[in-house]
Amino acid sequence: MVSQIPKMQWAQVFEKTGGPLEYKQIPVKQPGPDEVLINIKFSGVCHTDLHAMNGDWPLALKLPLVGGHEGAGVVVAKGELVKDIEIGDHAGVKWINGSCLACDFCQQSDEPLCPHALLSGYTVDGSFQQYCIAKAAHVARLHKDIPLDAVAPVLCAGITVYKGLKESGARPGQTVAIVGAGGGLGSIAQQYARAMGLRVIAIDAGDEKKKMCLEQLGAESFVDFSTSKDLVKDVKAATEDGLGPHAVILVAVTEKPFQQAAEYVRPRGVIVCIGMPAGAYLRAPVFESVVKMITIKGSYVGNRKDTSEALDFYRRGVIKCPFKVVGLSELKMVYDKMRAGTIAGRYVLDTSK
Amino acid sequence: MVSQIPKMQWAQVFEKTGGPLEYKQIPVKQPGPDEVLINIKFSGVCHTDLHAMNGDWPLALKLPLVGGHEGAGVVVAKGELVKDIEIGDHAGVKWINGSCLACDFCQQSDEPLCPHALLSGYTVDGSFQQYCIAKAAHVARLHKDIPLDAVAPVLCAGITVYKGLKESGARPGQTVAIVGAGGGLGSIAQQYARAMGLRVIAIDAGDEKKKMCLEQLGAESFVDFSTSKDLVKDVKAATEDGLGPHAVILVAVTEKPFQQAAEYVRPRGVIVCIGMPAGAYLRAPVFESVVKMITIKGSYVGNRKDTSEALDFYRRGVIKCPFKVVGLSELKMVYDKMRAGTIAGRYVLDTSK
Amino acid sequence: MVSQIPKMQWAQVFEKTGGPLEYKQIPVKQPGPDEVLINIKFSGVCHTDLHAMNGDWPLALKLPLVGGHEGAGVVVAKGELVKDIEIGDHAGVKWINGSCLACDFCQQSDEPLCPHALLSGYTVDGSFQQYCIAKAAHVARLHKDIPLDAVAPVLCAGITVYKGLKESGARPGQTVAIVGAGGGLGSIAQQYARAMGLRVIAIDAGDEKKKMCLEQLGAESFVDFSTSKDLVKDVKAATEDGLGPHAVILVAVTEKPFQQAAEYVRPRGVIVCIGMPAGAYLRAPVFESVVKMITIKGSYVGNRKDTSEALDFYRRGVIKCPFKVVGLSELKMVYDKMRAGTIAGRYVLDTSK
Amino acid sequence: MVSQIPKMQWAQVFEKTGGPLEYKQIPVKQPGPDEVLINIKFSGVCHTDLHAMNGDWPLALKLPLVGGHEGAGVVVAKGELVKDIEIGDHAGVKWINGSCLACDFCQQSDEPLCPHALLSGYTVDGSFQQYCIAKAAHVARLHKDIPLDAVAPVLCAGITVYKGLKESGARPGQTVAIVGAGGGLGSIAQQYARAMGLRVIAIDAGDEKKKMCLEQLGAESFVDFSTSKDLVKDVKAATEDGLGPHAVILVAVTEKPFQQAAEYVRPRGVIVCIGMPAGAYLRAPVFESVVKMITIKGSYVGNRKDTSEALDFYRRGVIKCPFKVVGLSELKMVYDKMRAGTIAGRYVLDTSK
Repeated sequence: MVSQIPKMQWAQVFEKTGGPLEYKQIPVKQPGPDEVLINIKFSGVCHTDLHAMNGDWPLALKLPLVGGHEGAGVVVAKGELVKDIEIGDHAGVKWINGSCLACDFCQQSDEPLCPHALLSGYTVDGSFQQYCIAKAAHVARLHKDIPLDAVAPVLCAGITVYKGLKESGARPGQTVAIVGAGGGLGSIAQQYARAMGLRVIAIDAGDEKKKMCLEQLGAESFVDFSTSKDLVKDVKAATEDGLGPHAVILVAVTEKPFQQAAEYVRPRGVIVCIGMPAGAYLRAPVFESVVKMITIKGSYVGNRKDTSEALDFYRRGVIKCPFKVVGLSELKMVYDKMRAGTIAGRYVLDTSK
Repeated sequence: MVSQIPKMQWAQVFEKTGGPLEYKQIPVKQPGPDEVLINIKFSGVCHTDLHAMNGDWPLALKLPLVGGHEGAGVVVAKGELVKDIEIGDHAGVKWINGSCLACDFCQQSDEPLCPHALLSGYTVDGSFQQYCIAKAAHVARLHKDIPLDAVAPVLCAGITVYKGLKESGARPGQTVAIVGAGGGLGSIAQQYARAMGLRVIAIDAGDEKKKMCLEQLGAESFVDFSTSKDLVKDVKAATEDGLGPHAVILVAVTEKPFQQAAEYVRPRGVIVCIGMPAGAYLRAPVFESVVKMITIKGSYVGNRKDTSEALDFYRRGVIKCPFKVVGLSELKMVYDKMRAGTIAGRYVLDTSK
Repeated sequence: MVSQIPKMQWAQVFEKTGGPLEYKQIPVKQPGPDEVLINIKFSGVCHTDLHAMNGDWPLALKLPLVGGHEGAGVVVAKGELVKDIEIGDHAGVKWINGSCLACDFCQQSDEPLCPHALLSGYTVDGSFQQYCIAKAAHVARLHKDIPLDAVAPVLCAGITVYKGLKESGARPGQTVAIVGAGGGLGSIAQQYARAMGLRVIAIDAGDEKKKMCLEQLGAESFVDFSTSKDLVKDVKAATEDGLGPHAVILVAVTEKPFQQAAEYVRPRGVIVCIGMPAGAYLRAPVFESVVKMITIKGSYVGNRKDTSEALDFYRRGVIKCPFKVVGLSELKMVYDKMRAGTIAGRYVLDTSK
Repeated sequence: MVSQIPKMQWAQVFEKTGGPLEYKQIPVKQPGPDEVLINIKFSGVCHTDLHAMNGDWPLALKLPLVGGHEGAGVVVAKGELVKDIEIGDHAGVKWINGSCLACDFCQQSDEPLCPHALLSGYTVDGSFQQYCIAKAAHVARLHKDIPLDAVAPVLCAGITVYKGLKESGARPGQTVAIVGAGGGLGSIAQQYARAMGLRVIAIDAGDEKKKMCLEQLGAESFVDFSTSKDLVKDVKAATEDGLGPHAVILVAVTEKPFQQAAEYVRPRGVIVCIGMPAGAYLRAPVFESVVKMITIKGSYVGNRKDTSEALDFYRRGVIKCPFKVVGLSELKMVYDKMRAGTIAGRYVLDTSK
């Protein structure tokens, strides 16, 4: 099978921050001793990919760069040290492409905090190409009964919201409010929450989202922030004892929702911040935070264990992420739609087209 | 012994917010079925007492009011339901005078969060009198080898900083930065931290405080915020691997130290906010908080278990709180000094004078 | 309503260990300051009640005694200190009738470990009477939409297995093996486990139980200990990676299942022992326990928080406990069936008959 | 520096289980891409080394074998993937020589449970040679101010007892009983416990050990099991409230101490079993274990994080392990003394002799 690996492959590349994006042929690389080469079949497209190309974040990019960090495919080559992955196995490339596995953070299973972490489609080439390199210890192991197109968005959005829910410390039977419940991350978060035995208060705007949250995604109540006269009161009222939810997951953080969360979260409650709007600040009144003993946490992406757990839920069929497939060659069109804000659900690229 | 309880007693009382304070005789009350009557021997004076009289906080006061919430004395009477306390036992009156012991928060040992909590010297009469009522289940049990004058300040400041250190989750061998280390709360916090096996970075200003922190209170390093050119860098540098302290205890919160804490705390670190400056806001950049997975927590006063643990450390001689004794009749003078900011250490009132 | 409380009531009483049981009229008592009087409508019958009458356990009984610790009814009187319960509220009497609420264990929410705990139907009169006294802080709060007959068994069996599952530390998505899955405790445990997002391996004997576990109670796999040739191998094989379940709940402990559990539980796994067969010993090989870092825990009954959580799951309709109603006067018949081992499901006594 | 590595080196080797041990020259190996070659300066000798040579354990050995798993030395060569270690750095070889860093256990920082773990001096050649290979991600990082002879025993005994103390969950201020307190592991355990803010009850036999525990090792009380008339009562009495220690560390498990531990440990307490006597069983009465909610845990060796933490305590000077240095050539003599039971403290081998 190794003999079938081509010398050249199709990829989406940009030479400098801001683009332009070029769909062209580039060489296929060889995996190092601790790496695998994955024939990417499908790759999700995430807002982060556009942020990367735009240079929106205060973190240096590799250039020229192949973006993408939601790649699913088949292992076609591996280094001499790789023992638990076989050629032909299915695997996923995620945001954390690799980490040192030796620093203080890796030692405590916080690989995403590793100062030497490699970021797919950011500090190393990612999944917008047909053959992608990744550190073997970090690739997501995918059972063969998992469809490679559908799983692609789970590799980023799914893992991230699952991690956020774990970080909240909410226990089965407790209530979690999800702010931005009807969006991409929020709709997946609701499903994970439900599968984890949590009760959900969905917070978002509009009747369409309300219907979707209550009828399809498992929320027990919906609070419309666009029509609520007193959001804090309404969210508290959505819990049986009126004391507010045990946790709040902020998937669309802006300063306003954040401050409100501190008001409606239950005393001893936990507010988890997942989204990262540019330049935003967490902000909460000291007096209330102290007297109510509130906790506010930032949650980044999942570690390897979170990844395997999140995928296990997905595989059992309890999580659905709607997606639409187009060719890898059409990435520019997807970015255009993203900029225009006209995407519902996730786009997944088929690298064969 | 019950027969010796007088009908009238000396107390410091104010009729309305803002005062004036009157030192006068008032009747001694009888304990209810679940209460004890404590002959207060000594009572510490805390800034909160002055805030209460001034009406500084958005929380209704009992009026007229006897302030004080750091009272130590001898049990002289008890209700019929009180079985584990005997007449003659030593006991302490603390901020949480009582709680319902039945609500969701009391059930999980978070009595300070009980919506029905009684607050000594705030919603019920406190320890600035010779005979004080308290709920038996809540009074601090004091071994007879503990001096009643010296322990008074521990009943508020000691318990509060001990609780904050517990809430930080820092484990023995890890490093905690204490912001405001040289002040009243900070100097006690350093001693508890050390007794808990933690390593301390003291953050404060001036050579006198530096000397005290390093030579008497057990800090391993001192960062002077008044002279540091780059506080964030200096605090990080005070940890061996340069990654910053595992936890930060903010005993003198203002917005600036708070934001800096988010920058120098170690990834996955915890910032505990104890102090409550009027109108202040917690504030942290979302991007950094998420990517570093920082936790920010408010910590209020300790529960009963924290109280007994904090007192146990004190009793073993590992915590010292400097104090000065004056008569109960001199409370006004203490408040005057407090307003003038000229107090070093704690004032303790002797109720016999 | 207080005026309607009769002076005398029907009760099942025994004068000495071993019985006989007498169905007769006894006086109705008055609640103390911190107590409520509950008009018991229904009471479940538990094996423990028979053990108590038989004097099977090394713990002194109150004599003469009214047994019963699964009583559900209506509050008809209350003491002066009781503020959060109104006359007419529904409430449940459970095994822990009261505790001191002040000792080291009560302070940390471990009321069942309180050395002064009052045990319903054991050290104080229980629910086999029409009017039962209980400490207000301890009675289970029952929403009025919960049927009083159906909830009776939840007050003991439900809370106990829910507590055991919590103690296991198993997280949503992890797998728990339930030994004795088809029995009374086991069938409820399976339902709670599922509601908590756990995956269940049911271990028991016979095709009828297999069918029930897999089709009605939510187990994902069933291992028949009566026909398995290698139980350890079969249980491990029931987990996807073959490493065994994350936790084991032993609701029917005998020494043999216990030792096997140590062999099939996953490394780092937790074995929770709930059942209490007379004279049995926990036993596990030291070498394997150390090298696999296994944890073995005893779990007693739930505290008040566990009680309210377990009832909340029940109220949401995710837990079913089959039961049969007979009159309070027929308790002897129920004990006879219990001795003969011919009871399936739970008997619930209607105190009006 | 690499050029100075010799082709041949001195080592202690045995060809088959049972020995004999041969002191001879063998080739020096080259490190693989993820390995380092360490010039061992000193190596501790542990009972496990003798067990290995004797074939006492149900786990296959590499043969022929170089034993030893407490090696301290200098890195002299490294593989291409090793980035965070430099030639000349000091490093330690411990029991876990390497692990896959990818399995479910490695992902959750439980590397000692990795099914593919390499064991120094057991499944791979260990530290009884001048040049030893180890996986770079697993070698203990040793600051240059740590003496290489003194630290050798810490690499096994120190890490193991520190891990056991962490596993106990005992918090600063709580009490831990150490059974076998005067022995090799026990005396180190006492020092770690104290440094972690724990209070120690030492359990062992004889006045000499009593004196050592109370005067040198920091124990607050000593219970002599050889003279105590009622060990359970005496251990409980050594805690202030008579309820027993919060945790028990069994470093010399035999069945009897184990059963007693279940009797004297505090309700909700934790018994940690570290020692591994051949063929022994953990054993505890079910009734008492359930009603007291006791936890019994096996604790194996530390992971990498435990290692670095344990070494950090050592480096700060709060832990002392007495040792005696002899030449590597004298290992047979050390084994002879070990068999005869005449060793006090630890033997450390100097590989240059």
